[in-house]
Amino acid sequence: MEGQSQHRAPEREGSHNYDIESTDGSGGLWRRNGSSSGALLRYNDSGGGRSGSAGEPLLRKRTMNTTSQIAIVGANVCPIESLDYEVVENDLFKQDWRSRKKKQIFQYIVLKWTLVLLIGLLTGLVGFFNNLAVENIAGFKLLLTGNLMLKERYLTAFFAYGGCNLVLAAAAAAICAYIAPAAAGSGIPEVKAYLNGVDAYSILAPSTLFVKIFGSILGVSAGFVLGKEGPMVHTGACIANLLGQGGSRKYRLTCNWLRYFKNDRDRRDLITCGSAAGVAAAFRAPVGGVLFALEEAASWWRSALLWRAFFTTAVVAVVLRSLIEFCRSGKCGLFGQGGLIMFDLSSTVATYSTPDLIAIIILGIIGGIFGGLFNFLLDKVLRVYSIINERGAPFKILLTITISIITSMCSYGLPWLAACTPCPVDAVEQCPTIGRSASFLGGTMRMTVSVCVILLELTNDLAMLPLVMLVLLISKTIADNFNKGVYDQIVVMKGLPYMEAHAEPYMRHLVAGDVVSGPLITFSGVEKVGNIVHALRFTGHNGFPVVDEPPLTEAPELVGLVTRSHLLVLLNGKMFMKDQLKTSGSFVLQRFGAFDFAKPGSGKGLKIQDLDFTDEEMEMYVDLHPVTNTSPYTVVETMSLAKAAILFRALGLRHLLVVPKTPDRPPIVGILTRHDFVEEHIHGLFPNLNPHKFHSTSMGG
Amino acid sequence: MEGQSQHRAPEREGSHNYDIESTDGSGGLWRRNGSSSGALLRYNDSGGGRSGSAGEPLLRKRTMNTTSQIAIVGANVCPIESLDYEVVENDLFKQDWRSRKKKQIFQYIVLKWTLVLLIGLLTGLVGFFNNLAVENIAGFKLLLTGNLMLKERYLTAFFAYGGCNLVLAAAAAAICAYIAPAAAGSGIPEVKAYLNGVDAYSILAPSTLFVKIFGSILGVSAGFVLGKEGPMVHTGACIANLLGQGGSRKYRLTCNWLRYFKNDRDRRDLITCGSAAGVAAAFRAPVGGVLFALEEAASWWRSALLWRAFFTTAVVAVVLRSLIEFCRSGKCGLFGQGGLIMFDLSSTVATYSTPDLIAIIILGIIGGIFGGLFNFLLDKVLRVYSIINERGAPFKILLTITISIITSMCSYGLPWLAACTPCPVDAVEQCPTIGRSASFLGGTMRMTVSVCVILLELTNDLAMLPLVMLVLLISKTIADNFNKGVYDQIVVMKGLPYMEAHAEPYMRHLVAGDVVSGPLITFSGVEKVGNIVHALRFTGHNGFPVVDEPPLTEAPELVGLVTRSHLLVLLNGKMFMKDQLKTSGSFVLQRFGAFDFAKPGSGKGLKIQDLDFTDEEMEMYVDLHPVTNTSPYTVVETMSLAKAAILFRALGLRHLLVVPKTPDRPPIVGILTRHDFVEEHIHGLFPNLNPHKFHSTSMGG
Repeated sequence: MEGQSQHRAPEREGSHNYDIESTDGSGGLWRRNGSSSGALLRYNDSGGGRSGSAGEPLLRKRTMNTTSQIAIVGANVCPIESLDYEVVENDLFKQDWRSRKKKQIFQYIVLKWTLVLLIGLLTGLVGFFNNLAVENIAGFKLLLTGNLMLKERYLTAFFAYGGCNLVLAAAAAAICAYIAPAAAGSGIPEVKAYLNGVDAYSILAPSTLFVKIFGSILGVSAGFVLGKEGPMVHTGACIANLLGQGGSRKYRLTCNWLRYFKNDRDRRDLITCGSAAGVAAAFRAPVGGVLFALEEAASWWRSALLWRAFFTTAVVAVVLRSLIEFCRSGKCGLFGQGGLIMFDLSSTVATYSTPDLIAIIILGIIGGIFGGLFNFLLDKVLRVYSIINERGAPFKILLTITISIITSMCSYGLPWLAACTPCPVDAVEQCPTIGRSASFLGGTMRMTVSVCVILLELTNDLAMLPLVMLVLLISKTIADNFNKGVYDQIVVMKGLPYMEAHAEPYMRHLVAGDVVSGPLITFSGVEKVGNIVHALRFTGHNGFPVVDEPPLTEAPELVGLVTRSHLLVLLNGKMFMKDQLKTSGSFVLQRFGAFDFAKPGSGKGLKIQDLDFTDEEMEMYVDLHPVTNTSPYTVVETMSLAKAAILFRALGLRHLLVVPKTPDRPPIVGILTRHDFVEEHIHGLFPNLNPHKFHSTSMGG
Repeated sequence: MEGQSQHRAPEREGSHNYDIESTDGSGGLWRRNGSSSGALLRYNDSGGGRSGSAGEPLLRKRTMNTTSQIAIVGANVCPIESLDYEVVENDLFKQDWRSRKKKQIFQYIVLKWTLVLLIGLLTGLVGFFNNLAVENIAGFKLLLTGNLMLKERYLTAFFAYGGCNLVLAAAAAAICAYIAPAAAGSGIPEVKAYLNGVDAYSILAPSTLFVKIFGSILGVSAGFVLGKEGPMVHTGACIANLLGQGGSRKYRLTCNWLRYFKNDRDRRDLITCGSAAGVAAAFRAPVGGVLFALEEAASWWRSALLWRAFFTTAVVAVVLRSLIEFCRSGKCGLFGQGGLIMFDLSSTVATYSTPDLIAIIILGIIGGIFGGLFNFLLDKVLRVYSIINERGAPFKILLTITISIITSMCSYGLPWLAACTPCPVDAVEQCPTIGRSASFLGGTMRMTVSVCVILLELTNDLAMLPLVMLVLLISKTIADNFNKGVYDQIVVMKGLPYMEAHAEPYMRHLVAGDVVSGPLITFSGVEKVGNIVHALRFTGHNGFPVVDEPPLTEAPELVGLVTRSHLLVLLNGKMFMKDQLKTSGSFVLQRFGAFDFAKPGSGKGLKIQDLDFTDEEMEMYVDLHPVTNTSPYTVVETMSLAKAAILFRALGLRHLLVVPKTPDRPPIVGILTRHDFVEEHIHGLFPNLNPHKFHSTSMGG
C-alpha cells in the first residue's frame, strides 16, 4: 500500500435517508452527521469467524455505507467511484442537444470510427512489439543457456539461466511497485469492473499502460507463467481510455476536439473495443477477441458496438499480419525462431471421427476438474500474496525474486524429470512441436484453460471448432459446479462492487426501502451557497436530490438530482444571487455550455478543496435548476430489491432515487447506489438472511 | 387476409388514463368508454399526403391507441400482443419461489441444456433435409433440361424447365396461402420482432413450421431467388418455440414437465438459440450463427445465453458434418452433385497482399451502394405485393405463378446473354466454380449481401476474415447512409412495434405524462366480480392497476398491477366472497400453484368468452391481492419520454405505470405500453414534432 491513497478525499455515491427535521429556515434540509467523515478506510478489520472461505473478499468494509468504498486495484488499495451511464437530462443538456447540427453529429461518428481505428492500430503495434521484445530477450537467454548446455556445463548454464530470470523479474517487480501498482496482476478483473461501472483512480492511467507493457515483457521474458490475454486486454483498455480522453493532460498530450467523448458512455464503448483488440492482438484471433469482450469483459452490449469491436479487431489482425510478413524476411532479430508466442498453427490436421468425440468429452471433463482446482488454488495463493503485498514495495520485489528462482529451477529441471509433460490440459492442440528449443516455455499459455483455448483454436481451421466448443462447454459446466469463473472470483475478492445482470435470490425478500441508509442530504431548488459547500466538504456524496419547497411550490416537490461534479462547476462559476426567490436559470444557460460540465478523465476535474468562498458569498444563493437532472430514475420504496437491482444494472445507473409509497410524506426517502446492492452490505443490515440458499443460477433470474 | 383474424377479440396492452369520477359506491373506479370496443381494425385507411415514401408502414393504425394493434405477420394481417419479460412478483410467485428446492433448480438447468441440444439436433436435421430435398428436386429438373438441351431441343427444354418451376411454385404458394399465411416471406423480421417482445398469433405455430419447411424446399427448387437464412432462422425459431411449449397441444404433442418454460423469458432464450441454430444450419457456420443472432435477431443478450447459443450451433455443425460424411458415400440421390447450396470452400486460396486491400475497399463501396439500392427497390416491390396480397389466396398463387414464369425465362435466357454475369456483388468469393452446371442457380445467395458474406466466409479459412470484415463494414456504412438495414425496414413496414435500444431524439421533448391516453381502468384490492368481468369483456386491456382505497387503507394507495391472464385464472377458480372487507389471500395461495398461472402457448389459454357467471356471482367480491404484481416498474409523469422508453426496452416490460408528481392526486396517472412509444402514435398526438430532425445515430443515444 502506498498510503497516499488513504489521504485522498473519499467520495460516496449518494446521500442517504431522509432526515425529517428541517434544521433551519434557510430552506436547506441537510444536516451533517458527525461520524460520516471519520473512520474511512478500515482495511482487513475482519470480524473473525468468517475469514478464509473461498470467494470471500480480501477487504472488509464498513457495513453502514456512510463513507467511500475501497477496493484492491492491481496491487494497490484505493478508493473507487461509480461511473454514470445515465444521460443527465438537465436544461443545459437540452439546450446543447437542440443546438447540435447534422454536421456535428457526422463529425462525432467519423471521430468515433477514427478512434477505434487508432485503437486497433496501436493495440496491434503494441502487441507485436511485446512479442518482438519477448522473443528477442527470451531467445537470447535460451541461446546462452543452450550453448552452455551443449558444452555440458550444466551448473553454469543453470546460473546463467536463473540469473537472467532473476534480473528480469526484479526489474519487472520494481517498475510495477514504484511506478504503477495498479498495473500488477492480470488486469482483466479491473477492466471487467470498469466496464460494469466501477472506476478507480489510475486503473487506466498512462503510467499503468507504460508499466503494463514493459512489465509484461520483462515478466514473460523472465519465464513467468503469465496469461497473455490479461496484460493485452488491460493494455488495449488503457490505449482506448487515453485516446478517448484525448491523451493525458498530465503529460500535455491533450486534444480539445475530443470533447464529445468526455462522458462515461462513450468511454465505455471505446474501452470495450480496446479490450477486444487486446485479446485479438494476444492471439491473432479477431472473432475470438470480440467474443471474449462479449463474454468476459463487457456488461452492456448492443449491435453498433459489435460492429465497432469487429472493426477494431480486424484492424489488429491486419496490422499483425503485415508486421509478421515484414519480419519473415529476418529483420526482427530472433523473432519467429521460437514460434511459441505468436501462434500460427495453419499446418495442423483437421479431421476427426466419432471415437475422437468420446476422447474429447473425457478431455472436457478432466479440463473442467482441473480448471476448478486451479481456481480454488488461485484463491489461496492470492490470499498469501495480498498479505505480503501489504508490507510495501521492497517485500513485493523480494517475493517476485523468490518466485523467479523457484520458477527457474522448475523449468530448468522439468525436462529431466519427464519427457513430454507439458500440455496436460490443452491437449486439444496435440502438443504441436515439442522440440527440446521450446518445452521450457511450453506451459506459458496453460494458465487460463477456461477461455484461452477457444481463442487459440479460432486461429486454427474451423473444422475443429464444434469439437472445441463441446470441450469448453463440458469443462465450463463442470468447473461451474466448483466455483465461479476465475475473473468473477478475483473481482469479488478484490472488493470491486460488481453488479450481475440478474438479481440474487435473497433480494426478493427485501424491498428498496429496507436498504437505504445514512443521513440523506437534500438541496432546495435555490440553495444557500454555504449549505452546498458544507455538504460537499464534509461528505463524500456524489448525488443530491433537489426538492422545491414552499414558498416556491405549494407542497414539497422532487425536482430531480444534482451531481457533485455539476455543483462544483456551478460554484466555480460564482453565479450567485442575494435573493432566494429569484431564479437565474437563463443566465446560467448563457454563461455555461454543456461541455463545461463534461466529465474529465478519472482522477482529474475540480475538487471542493480547490474552491474558496468569502463569507459574503457563503450567505448568497445559487439556482440549481439548470443543472438538475429532472428525469432521474425512481422506484417506490416497496419495490422488491431484486427488481430495483435489475433496473439499476440494466440502465447503468449511479443513483436510483427511492420515493415514498404514501402521499403524506416528504417526496424522497433515500438514494440507492451500487454499494447498497453489494451482498456484504445487505448481509450487514440483515444478518439472518441466508444469501447462499440459492445461488446465481436461480430460476428467478 | 383470411378474415378470421379480424374476428378475434382484440387485446390492448394496458388500460389508459385516469378517469377521475368514482362512478359508484362499490369501490370500482373504472368506467367503460363506449367507443373503445368499436372501430377495431382499420386497414390501410391512409390519410393521404403521406403515402408511398420509403420506410412508411404498410398499415395505418388508429392514433388513439384505444384498441388493439395489428401488424402484417408473414402475408397475414393479425392482431399482435406484447410479451412480458418482467418477473411478476406477486404472493403466488413468492410462495412458489420459496418452495423450490435445489433438486428442482438442477432439473430446470438440465432441462434447459437438453432443450437446446434438441433444438440443435432438430434444426440440423431439418437444414440437412432441406438441402437434400432441394438438391434432389432441382438436380432432377436440371438433368431433364440439360438432356433435352444436349439433344438441341431448346424449346422443349424451356417448357420442361418452365413447367417444373411452375408446378413447384404453385405448390409452394398454395400451401402457404391456404395452410399458414404467417409463413410467407423471410420470417426474420417476425422473429426479430418476437425477440423484441412482439407476439403474434401463429407466427411460431406448428403449421407455420410445416409450411416453412416444405414451402422453402419447393420455392428454392422452383428457382426462386430466396435467401437461405430467412427460412432457416424462422424454422429454428419455430422448433425452439414448439420444444419450449412442450410440443403442440392442438396436435396432442404436449409434455407436462416443461412447465418451467411456460413463461416469456425462458421462451425468448430458447428462440434466440433456435434462430442462431437456423443460421448455423443454413451456412454450416456455428460462429456466424451466434453472431447473426446477436447482431440481427436478439434484443436482449447475456453471457449465459451466449454459451447456450454456441452449444446449439456446435450441435448443428456436428449433425451436419456427420450427415454430409454419410452422404459422401452416394446414398442421398443427387445430393452433393451441385455443390452450390452446402458451401464447402475449403479448397479456395487464402493469400492477399496490399493491392488486394484497395480492390477490396472499392468492392465494399460498390457493395454498399448496391445494397442500399436493393433495399430501396425492396420497399417498392413489397408495397405492390401487399396490395395484391390483400385480394386473397387465389391472387397470391397467380402472382407466384407469374413471377415463376418470369424467373424461368430470365434464368434460362441469362447464360445466352452473358458468359459470366452472376456474382456481381459477392465477388469476394471470386465466383468459385462457374461451370455451365450451376450458373442457373448462381444468384441464389446474392440476396442478403449485408449479412450473408460473413457467414459464408466464416466457413472458409480465417486468413481472409479481416478483409471480409473491412468490406462488410464499408458496405454497411455506405448502405446505412441510404436506409436502415433490410430487416429493420421490413419490421417497420409490417407495422410491428419494434423498440430500439436507444430512444429517438424527439422523445426528449416529451414527458411520460404526455403520451398516456385512453380511459384508465383500475380495480380495487377487493373488487366486485361483475366489474372485472365487464372490464375484461368490453376492453382489450391486458394490465389493470390495483388501488386500495378507504376504508381498506387511509388514503388511495397503489398496490400494483394485475394482468388479464391472471384475472381469468382467478375468475375461473371462482374463489368469491360475499363481503368486500374480508380477504381470502391464504385460501387462494392454498388453492392455486404458480404453474396454474403459467403462460400457455400463444393463441391458447383461457378467454373471457369461455367463462360464465351467475348473477349472484357477479355481485360477489374477489380478492386480487394474491395475484397482484406488487413491484411494477413506475415512472413519474414528468420523466422524459426518452428515458421512459429506455427503461421500458432495457427491462423488456409490457406495462409501465405512470405515477403523479404531486401528492394530492390519485396514485396512478396512466399506463405506458409498447404502442405508446411508436413513432406513429406520438406523431398523431403531436403533429408538430419533427421526428426526422435527428435520426437514430444521434449523439444522445
